[in-house]
Amino acid sequence: MAGLLRRSLVLRRRPDGEPQPEDFDIVESEVPDPGLGEVVTRTIWLSIDPYMRGRLSDRASYATPVQIGEVMTGESIGEVVASADPGFAAGDVVVGSRGWQTHSLSKAAALTRLDRDAAPLQANLGVLGMPGTTAYSGMKDIGNVKAGETVVISAASGAVGSVAGQLAKRAGARVVGIAGGPEKCIWVQEALRFDDCVDHRVPHLQQALADACPNGIDVYFENVGGEVQAAAFALLNPFARVVMCGMVAQYNESRFPPGPNLGFVVGKRVRIEGLIVSDKPERVAEWRALASPWVRDGSLHYRETVVDGLENAPTALQMVLSGGNFGKMLVRVGPDRG
Amino acid sequence: MAGLLRRSLVLRRRPDGEPQPEDFDIVESEVPDPGLGEVVTRTIWLSIDPYMRGRLSDRASYATPVQIGEVMTGESIGEVVASADPGFAAGDVVVGSRGWQTHSLSKAAALTRLDRDAAPLQANLGVLGMPGTTAYSGMKDIGNVKAGETVVISAASGAVGSVAGQLAKRAGARVVGIAGGPEKCIWVQEALRFDDCVDHRVPHLQQALADACPNGIDVYFENVGGEVQAAAFALLNPFARVVMCGMVAQYNESRFPPGPNLGFVVGKRVRIEGLIVSDKPERVAEWRALASPWVRDGSLHYRETVVDGLENAPTALQMVLSGGNFGKMLVRVGPDRG
Repeated sequence: MAGLLRRSLVLRRRPDGEPQPEDFDIVESEVPDPGLGEVVTRTIWLSIDPYMRGRLSDRASYATPVQIGEVMTGESIGEVVASADPGFAAGDVVVGSRGWQTHSLSKAAALTRLDRDAAPLQANLGVLGMPGTTAYSGMKDIGNVKAGETVVISAASGAVGSVAGQLAKRAGARVVGIAGGPEKCIWVQEALRFDDCVDHRVPHLQQALADACPNGIDVYFENVGGEVQAAAFALLNPFARVVMCGMVAQYNESRFPPGPNLGFVVGKRVRIEGLIVSDKPERVAEWRALASPWVRDGSLHYRETVVDGLENAPTALQMVLSGGNFGKMLVRVGPDRG
Repeated sequence: MAGLLRRSLVLRRRPDGEPQPEDFDIVESEVPDPGLGEVVTRTIWLSIDPYMRGRLSDRASYATPVQIGEVMTGESIGEVVASADPGFAAGDVVVGSRGWQTHSLSKAAALTRLDRDAAPLQANLGVLGMPGTTAYSGMKDIGNVKAGETVVISAASGAVGSVAGQLAKRAGARVVGIAGGPEKCIWVQEALRFDDCVDHRVPHLQQALADACPNGIDVYFENVGGEVQAAAFALLNPFARVVMCGMVAQYNESRFPPGPNLGFVVGKRVRIEGLIVSDKPERVAEWRALASPWVRDGSLHYRETVVDGLENAPTALQMVLSGGNFGKMLVRVGPDRG
């Protein structure tokens, strides 16, 4: 599109430990014209999520890593500026995997049109989007929470954990969060109405969690790993379920530390199961239909941390990997003119 | 029963590491008369199983430990010598949890009458009994093996592993055993017809197992733990299932070593699930009905290691914990007069 320039963040080198802004190049290029079935969009909101650290490593994983010189991948919300597909028109707002850039050329089939009036646009990247769907799928497909059970959620104030815990409350469970620092813990208890929240920075985490879970743990929703995992595993009840959603505490590590001895899994008949949200694509629409009314009526709570400017996406990723965010991490790349 | 003496092995002290004969006392006492609804039996076969090590520790477990001065628990087969219950008559042969002793006084409801002609009596403690049922339940309730998948069985020549692997073969899987020493490996391949068997004593177990599993591992049936577990976990495929049946390699340890870092569980969506056979009591009769014809027609293979004399039960337990047995470990306590 003659005269229309875009900026993209491309991977310059694989990060050693914490990703740095210098690990990316900012590249300017002319926005291509859309071919048949293609759509050009301008980015409004960019989602920043812990899983992105895995895309920066060449370690084997469930998804192909980003290659050196490629645009960093990621979900984002954009406004259509040019369309060569009958399904989209200029001014439409869409969500999709559009990458870390100010404008994207996408296949129409890879985009989903959003209703501007259904919820704040950026909620489609958080509470109603991939993180919310992850929490829903984890609870539905693995957690199977029953009323009266004790459910522990690590990274409880995060985009996934905050939804997972609120779902467990709706199921009638006693819900205990684990979060970093008093501010997050207060919000988890007061806004999300968890029954308790343990600050993982206290000196005796194991004892603090035991005190908060007098009847042990029936479901543990794992987002963190490390010491937090050890503390929770030690309290698992017979027939407990562990939703293995993530282990963000080690995502910057090049060598992973040893884990728990698994002898307890036999004697306690524990089930530990991994979850990748994209394995059950039908959960996306299910969750949006279920949760949109709760977002509108204010009964499903969430927080966002916003940084401005595409160039700050690497910093936002640092924050999400170190707990420097509070709730869903977002980059505002451009204005919402809608 | 005036004049009828029995010998019992009672726990003298909790073993430190490997159980020793000196950890038990042999106590002689008069066999009590049966009260209403009770049955007195004479022991023929005593089952020795790895789980028994847990009963000797006061560590929290799914079952109450044996107390100092109590008769050691265990399944056994006996002949009725006196009955005060209409359901049993002298000469009947029964199986039940009768403990390490030459005669038992049992509630009739705790005993199951055996058909002497259906199978060799002692098969009811092994291939048709608790170990066989464990293998069946593990494969049915957790493993969910599909044709063409790769299944790895640790302790493959053991009472549980040998059945688990033969079930996987019947399901059309490629089955790889792990066993200790060439004699066991040869039997696993030639008699049990596993596709391959890796000797866990080879210097490069990880590589040997990888060579035997060119398509990775879809189901891992865990009986061992330790290095064997690490080697198998490293080869798990996406959506693999791990049947956590036991970790005998550490049963004599007072402190358990660390285990695997569980990051792979997320990315590979692995399910790791513990199994205790008594949780699904209906599997016992199901398995007996299914497998008895296979035992009679010789299509379900098994081996036994027999030691004679009640006083040798602690030595038999040592053997089962160190891999000194070959197949089902049994103690012949008295003659089968039937």
